[in-house]
Amino acid sequence: MLLSVLYIIGITAEAMTGALSAGRRNMDWFGVMLVASATAIGGGTVRDILLGHYPLGWVKHPEFLAITCLAGVLTTGLAKWIIKLKGVFIRLDALGLVVFTIIGTNVGLSMGLHPFICVVSGLVTGVFGGLLRDLICRQTPLVLHQELYASISVVAACLYLALLEYGISTLVTTVITLIVGYALRMAAVRFKWRLPSFHLEGEEALH
Amino acid sequence: MLLSVLYIIGITAEAMTGALSAGRRNMDWFGVMLVASATAIGGGTVRDILLGHYPLGWVKHPEFLAITCLAGVLTTGLAKWIIKLKGVFIRLDALGLVVFTIIGTNVGLSMGLHPFICVVSGLVTGVFGGLLRDLICRQTPLVLHQELYASISVVAACLYLALLEYGISTLVTTVITLIVGYALRMAAVRFKWRLPSFHLEGEEALH
Amino acid sequence: MLLSVLYIIGITAEAMTGALSAGRRNMDWFGVMLVASATAIGGGTVRDILLGHYPLGWVKHPEFLAITCLAGVLTTGLAKWIIKLKGVFIRLDALGLVVFTIIGTNVGLSMGLHPFICVVSGLVTGVFGGLLRDLICRQTPLVLHQELYASISVVAACLYLALLEYGISTLVTTVITLIVGYALRMAAVRFKWRLPSFHLEGEEALH
Repeated sequence: MLLSVLYIIGITAEAMTGALSAGRRNMDWFGVMLVASATAIGGGTVRDILLGHYPLGWVKHPEFLAITCLAGVLTTGLAKWIIKLKGVFIRLDALGLVVFTIIGTNVGLSMGLHPFICVVSGLVTGVFGGLLRDLICRQTPLVLHQELYASISVVAACLYLALLEYGISTLVTTVITLIVGYALRMAAVRFKWRLPSFHLEGEEALH
Repeated sequence: MLLSVLYIIGITAEAMTGALSAGRRNMDWFGVMLVASATAIGGGTVRDILLGHYPLGWVKHPEFLAITCLAGVLTTGLAKWIIKLKGVFIRLDALGLVVFTIIGTNVGLSMGLHPFICVVSGLVTGVFGGLLRDLICRQTPLVLHQELYASISVVAACLYLALLEYGISTLVTTVITLIVGYALRMAAVRFKWRLPSFHLEGEEALH
Repeated sequence: MLLSVLYIIGITAEAMTGALSAGRRNMDWFGVMLVASATAIGGGTVRDILLGHYPLGWVKHPEFLAITCLAGVLTTGLAKWIIKLKGVFIRLDALGLVVFTIIGTNVGLSMGLHPFICVVSGLVTGVFGGLLRDLICRQTPLVLHQELYASISVVAACLYLALLEYGISTLVTTVITLIVGYALRMAAVRFKWRLPSFHLEGEEALH
């Protein structure tokens, strides 16, 4: 219930960030709706396809897809206002990351998968929407360069599984994971925490 | 039956446009066959994966894949001739768009899905082949910039569903949808009808 | 058994080549693990999704995914050493191509698919990992330009099916296919065998 409300807020916010990326590529309304939807529900879609978890969420609940299309188109009219609310969106995005991660981890659990695959399921749900957005808009994926993002998803999924393992109730586990994950992400943005990156120079190397 | 014949004409024509894109990227024959097949049958493949509709069309009917590979390789020898027939191909592409859309909408109906998802199923079948072609060939997807294309697919799918809903026979519904969809697409090309597009300037916005 | 050992060597080597590509794009550790895993097990993943062959290999055997992530991260520390071993990696890559192809062909056989689709299954397993790597790293896919690669996969799959058809035991068939496929690939690299490629000049052609 709590997750459902947060999920709808999350996909709306993510759809808006997707629409802004589409706008920077001068796409038409169809492109805006495509990128908005891919950003918001692409992570869950990739997860369900990888796990063979049918029907997909938006096929079962077409209203989710309708929300992301609508949020995308509204963004074309509200772009200036949205950009001014940058701080709000960074918070919504942080919240969305943790919500999506928890939902994805739950899908893995409900299918009886190995804990490692449950974490991957949460991670894919949390970060693949943004990856798809950057792939369609032909940008180098931000998640591979920026402040800790995928790592937060992994930590949140591990924490969630560990708390459940210790017998804590699902509700309490969910709330703790939301708070810790959100706080970590905001701290990562604030203090510019990054993973080490791997630089390799010029030479053609193996290929 | 009518749809089967039109489908084979459609995938052949689309495979040829895919092969031409591969040629502009100097790909080898394997690349040509890959892009030709992705363009022609990629839309139906993405649809079936999203809907969990197995086995895929070309796995059940390998001859469709053989046709697209062959059409791709033939195009390498016939390119100059094909480019001169530009007008024919624009017509075949318009026809293919509507045929693919109707087939996709039918798949949704046969699975008992919500009408909105049936329209999405038709849309994905109609336009994702071209999206895949442009993604592999690293072009900004044309469908997101050009004259009405995805919109025609949506209109055709809605018309098809509406006519069936009003109790009109499948054959008559199919013929009417083909004529109206084809006419709309040709009009869109002729009069350069476009969706409004969304321009966003420089600033980094949310990311 | 033989294939299992070779498979693990193959995914380790492919993960390392993927990690090097990620390094040339200055990705962080998450990106390195993503590209390493996509390169190593992406081909099998795409194959299983196309064929509806669930659960995916790495969902059933999470240790394969753990190996590719680990190999990716180790590569960031060992890059200079790995690049000096270029010759070894070209051999491992050739071996991996044939091993992946045989495994993919076997999946098709085990599902009772048409021989043409079994060959496609082997081909997808053999070459799509590299395609995914180049797509994520935004390079024009090497497999579409370089010395014979996909063609070797097709030849190996056909040879494998033909030998089995003639009643030769699976073990002997596997060993012969490995030797012939490996020798052909190394010869293709040595003598720069290429498929004809398709060049098309400037004009916008059909779109």
